[in-house]
Amino acid sequence: MKRTGRFTSLHLMPRCDFSLRLVLSTLAVLVAVTFDTPAQEPAQQPTQEPSRRTAQKPATVFQFSTLPALSLGLYDGEMTFKELLKHGDFGIGTFRALDGELVILNGKAWRVRADGRVSPVERKTTTPFAIVTRFAPDHTLQVTQPLDYPALQRRLSLMLPTTNAAYAIEISGTFARLKVRSVPGQSKPYRPLAEVVKSQSVWEWKNVRGTLAGFRFPPYLAGVNLADYHFHFLSEDKQRGGHLLDCELQEGQIRMQTLRGFEMQLPTGDDFDRADLATDQSAALKATEKAGAN
Amino acid sequence: MKRTGRFTSLHLMPRCDFSLRLVLSTLAVLVAVTFDTPAQEPAQQPTQEPSRRTAQKPATVFQFSTLPALSLGLYDGEMTFKELLKHGDFGIGTFRALDGELVILNGKAWRVRADGRVSPVERKTTTPFAIVTRFAPDHTLQVTQPLDYPALQRRLSLMLPTTNAAYAIEISGTFARLKVRSVPGQSKPYRPLAEVVKSQSVWEWKNVRGTLAGFRFPPYLAGVNLADYHFHFLSEDKQRGGHLLDCELQEGQIRMQTLRGFEMQLPTGDDFDRADLATDQSAALKATEKAGAN
Repeated sequence: MKRTGRFTSLHLMPRCDFSLRLVLSTLAVLVAVTFDTPAQEPAQQPTQEPSRRTAQKPATVFQFSTLPALSLGLYDGEMTFKELLKHGDFGIGTFRALDGELVILNGKAWRVRADGRVSPVERKTTTPFAIVTRFAPDHTLQVTQPLDYPALQRRLSLMLPTTNAAYAIEISGTFARLKVRSVPGQSKPYRPLAEVVKSQSVWEWKNVRGTLAGFRFPPYLAGVNLADYHFHFLSEDKQRGGHLLDCELQEGQIRMQTLRGFEMQLPTGDDFDRADLATDQSAALKATEKAGAN
Repeated sequence: MKRTGRFTSLHLMPRCDFSLRLVLSTLAVLVAVTFDTPAQEPAQQPTQEPSRRTAQKPATVFQFSTLPALSLGLYDGEMTFKELLKHGDFGIGTFRALDGELVILNGKAWRVRADGRVSPVERKTTTPFAIVTRFAPDHTLQVTQPLDYPALQRRLSLMLPTTNAAYAIEISGTFARLKVRSVPGQSKPYRPLAEVVKSQSVWEWKNVRGTLAGFRFPPYLAGVNLADYHFHFLSEDKQRGGHLLDCELQEGQIRMQTLRGFEMQLPTGDDFDRADLATDQSAALKATEKAGAN
């Protein structure tokens, strides 16, 4: 499991509302911050209450299969979207045969194919890997000045109450620059993800309005997911999208949800049972997720 | 994350019903094996159906907190047994302030204190770490000849359909030898588990009837649990028990449940949020769990 220096240093930080205020008061203030504000959600999606002593189920992330399993070429869809969407209304993932990038926003699932087309996902469609949650943000931050992707990630890291939880993150606004990818559908025998991304489609756009949906997992879950930021994009007009490689956020809103519940459902096939999931792939995974970013 | 040679070699094995029959037909037969027999459970606890294409929720293991977090000294109980027992009727774990070893069998929770006393657990009692499931075994094996603990673990490993799932394992019978431990309740500031086990109580018994309850996790979950066999013992008369260090099973029955669902609930306290969970502790954990075994 790869351990980054950032995780280590963050463990020493006090809780974010203190540290972020310190940053704001000592550095040039780029953003206006609101903490623990009620989520701007419709009435049917109430704001997550602060978690208490296990009285109720905590905000939970659900994933089908593991990212290392996917990266080895386990692209057969096993879970239908009918089933997946019971576990959440917000998320990312992929499709049977790795045919496109998945974005789920407000309970609606969208597929971005390698030819650039964006289409709604049918309930009978299946996924070999997806991550979802019932999105109810507990932290909100208005961004009023441009942030490139490294700066955006630093800003997000300052918002995290701890690196020991998982997070769902939604970033909506205008992107001055955006670089995304999608991957072409595969046929058997499936090649590993690191091979497939060599033939990915990459698009670069300017001044696009839309939303990044994504997650960040704690380092101790690197055996099952990416212990780093992982976003998929969908434009406001639902015409463009893909797996984020790079961006510059012009202005917008970050909404983040702390996830202290983790649920995973494993595939049942022989391919999964025989896969070499004991070898650490976390470094290779980070490289694959960023392939083509620079 | 430690990777053992055993995991690697097992990935190459075909499914266990074939490989185990091969073993039985080519080696001296020590045990009589029955696969996929209906669980000997009362009617209110039906046998788990073979998992199918995600139509229903798979057999699931639930854990509160993580074993690495516990090992760092996070011994404050956060989850009540009232809540924990909603997630399962079979399991192991510990108690607030690390005050004893937990065994849950048939929905009843028992505490084995360091003075050797065994007592039922009250619902208001809390745990800082526990693992539970609704036990509905899918593999059963009769043991008719003695197996020492290394041989027992080899036998269990032959039963596993894959090392990529988690397993709940119950071993009931007569133990020719049994070596178990319990740990004394701690006070703050808590010392790490590796320190506490230096003052553990160890008991060795002969010819004891009872049950081992335990789990085995896949190697890719070594960041949150033990990627090895982990058992707690309770005698048939509920007078003796503890964390298993060594044994010889005279005769009995192994019942195993394949778990393709994994659920985890994280603590909410600052101690958890600040803990260094990014450093790999899997090797140290295995040593702690076996401290005093030899």
